[in-house]
Amino acid sequence: SVPFDPSSHSHRRFNPLTQEWVLCSPHRTKRPWQGAVEPPQLDSRPAYDEKCYLCPGNERAGGIRTEKYEGTFVFENDFAALVETSVLPPPPSALGDAVNSLYQQEPARGKCYVICFSPRHDLTVAEMSDAEIEGVVKVWTKLYVDVSTEYPWLKYIQIFENKGSMMGCSNPHPHGQAWSLSYIPSRPATILQSQRDYAHSQNPIPNVPLLANGKPSLLLNYAASELAKHQSGDEDSRVIFVGKHFIALVPFWASWPFETMVLPFQRHIPSLAALTEEEAIDLASTLGAVSRRMDNLFECSFGYSMGVYQAPVHRPSAAELDVNATAAEEADDWAAYAQLHVGFYPPLLRSSTVKKFLVGFELFAETQRDITPEQAAKRLRDCDDVHYKQRKE
Amino acid sequence: SVPFDPSSHSHRRFNPLTQEWVLCSPHRTKRPWQGAVEPPQLDSRPAYDEKCYLCPGNERAGGIRTEKYEGTFVFENDFAALVETSVLPPPPSALGDAVNSLYQQEPARGKCYVICFSPRHDLTVAEMSDAEIEGVVKVWTKLYVDVSTEYPWLKYIQIFENKGSMMGCSNPHPHGQAWSLSYIPSRPATILQSQRDYAHSQNPIPNVPLLANGKPSLLLNYAASELAKHQSGDEDSRVIFVGKHFIALVPFWASWPFETMVLPFQRHIPSLAALTEEEAIDLASTLGAVSRRMDNLFECSFGYSMGVYQAPVHRPSAAELDVNATAAEEADDWAAYAQLHVGFYPPLLRSSTVKKFLVGFELFAETQRDITPEQAAKRLRDCDDVHYKQRKE
Ligand SMILES: O=P(O)(O)O[C@H]1O[C@H](CO)[C@@H](O)[C@H](O)[C@H]1O
Ligand SMILES: O=P(O)(O)O[C@H]1O[C@H](CO)[C@@H](O)[C@H](O)[C@H]1O
Repeated sequence: SVPFDPSSHSHRRFNPLTQEWVLCSPHRTKRPWQGAVEPPQLDSRPAYDEKCYLCPGNERAGGIRTEKYEGTFVFENDFAALVETSVLPPPPSALGDAVNSLYQQEPARGKCYVICFSPRHDLTVAEMSDAEIEGVVKVWTKLYVDVSTEYPWLKYIQIFENKGSMMGCSNPHPHGQAWSLSYIPSRPATILQSQRDYAHSQNPIPNVPLLANGKPSLLLNYAASELAKHQSGDEDSRVIFVGKHFIALVPFWASWPFETMVLPFQRHIPSLAALTEEEAIDLASTLGAVSRRMDNLFECSFGYSMGVYQAPVHRPSAAELDVNATAAEEADDWAAYAQLHVGFYPPLLRSSTVKKFLVGFELFAETQRDITPEQAAKRLRDCDDVHYKQRKE
Repeated sequence: SVPFDPSSHSHRRFNPLTQEWVLCSPHRTKRPWQGAVEPPQLDSRPAYDEKCYLCPGNERAGGIRTEKYEGTFVFENDFAALVETSVLPPPPSALGDAVNSLYQQEPARGKCYVICFSPRHDLTVAEMSDAEIEGVVKVWTKLYVDVSTEYPWLKYIQIFENKGSMMGCSNPHPHGQAWSLSYIPSRPATILQSQRDYAHSQNPIPNVPLLANGKPSLLLNYAASELAKHQSGDEDSRVIFVGKHFIALVPFWASWPFETMVLPFQRHIPSLAALTEEEAIDLASTLGAVSRRMDNLFECSFGYSMGVYQAPVHRPSAAELDVNATAAEEADDWAAYAQLHVGFYPPLLRSSTVKKFLVGFELFAETQRDITPEQAAKRLRDCDDVHYKQRKE
């Protein structure tokens, strides 16, 4: 039989977190590209832009002024996708169960926040110092704790960043968002459930850390196996960077060309709130190491969506909540199996102007990727740790 | 309590086919847009372009010449994502079940085809006559039947079209693709399973047509309930167009701003191969009616990904196949519950240059939409049936 050649043989890989398959067709990169090219992702912006509503002291929608902040700054989104007083649309007319089951809806309440990462309009995470990124990790953590304490009806907080106009970002000032929700959204729910199912169906592996409840952890086992492969000097390592507590890698099941996951490998860390000071510092420096390598890959500002997966928010007892006891127990139960991890989904594929489109086959059938995760990891791993703009001649 | 206001109250809706929730935040359209704008989607192209490899008689990659075709033309993709001789990558080193379960992979074999819709370089489906679109439906059908007969190891054929550079289309010549596969991909598998589960868990509704096996059909019930609401004159109708056999509507659970589904409402039609002559004609004219309204909405060439969902390919007995008997029975079983339907996923939201980005929250948490499906349906329904370029002054 023919030996496997990653530059010509298609295969599928399974994502054990989202429970979906990904088609990997490595030879596809050989095809010529005549489609859309993006504007060059090079930016030279001023450190302060008087027209930017995220720059310190400037006016926002509705006449409010952004504080003259240093470091980070959090405010409620002026155009929040979720508000506290959500109301359910009227139920569809009663046509019997067979029809009603097709019209399921539920209320969605929430609070949405914008998080400015820096007063400097011209920076991105890739160009910020590790200490400045640590400020971002700290403000995420504070928000995760404070918001869920203040609004006990919240069940989940989705922290994310859209970087670059290619990824729908409407303002280049370095910032992210946090949408806090009265429910656990579809994808985090599946990912939490997968981690729970894994803990109950697998046996512990010797020398690999366990969940706080003594059960095996999907992501601790995964990190351990990737680290072992990397440390053995395997050419096909998917590891990009190894910190003291966190590891950055291109997952075996990556969808996006240079998709990256940052996850702890030393112990069970269910959420940002569980980070020790040293772990928070290490998470920040690992996020910096990843972002700089991404910018260096094509020497451009490398767009992505970045998101934090973690435990549903900590909440008081079920009785205090406007959710039923079963839902509250389920959320607490999921929290016991959750492992904090950060995902980067960048669209660029071949250069600073040619991205991968997840359209057509990908939307209707299943995700398809053009280079192998191993090829992507090698390219990111080989990138310089110093940002290209900051390199000495 | 506050009455529901679709222009200000967030809620979630459930997609019973993909089994995922969608967050609907109608008031979000009020926010100002300062993000990326697309180049104007206006095209004036020549009827023949000597540099286009899809125009009749021109040279393609590898020196092959595209035939001097009239009507439609099918050829094997010169850069196919799947080939017949797929080989599996080596298994990850044996580390025990707990680790091996994280590295699931399988071979992916297939045949990929390109389908030219017209010799005219300057047309799109929206500007083709109903008779010309009927030619496209016919060539899809022939391909679905012929390919699965010639390659009995195939299990599924995904037919789709990416229209417009915004949707990753690399050549504006009107064309689509068919990726035929040795397996049923993740999303069609879920959609087939949902239809099967529905048939087994619901009771028939009086006066609504049933599946060939006498069980209730998710999509026939859905079409019937949308049609009834529409015919009652309800302002919130999600119907765009009603043909003789097919109906076009914005599904209750739509993800994309102007997502549209075209589906039969008179009887169970598992696949293109089951269409009568009259049904094929009606499907073509319904697809035309939808495409023209989409182009008319913002008076531009309205980009989208379009895809056909249907039964897995008809195959001979399990013994003749290189799949095991259980897999073959499963596919046959699914086919009994499948209902043919066509989806349109267009990204434009506000104008010909501002699209909806499904990024950040959407990628990490769950899909979010800005206008209600009812608002989207009304706007498309109210569009003229005559293409704006073909209107008399
Ligand atoms: O095959 P094409 O048109 O060159 O490529 C397009 O469609 C494919 C299938 O949806 C996608 O994988 C590509 O990302 C897209 O650019
Ligand atoms: O909130 P923003 O940055 O204006 O908007 C961006 O992020 C949101 C959350 O991912 C998306 O829903 C929008 O489509 C995108 O343009």
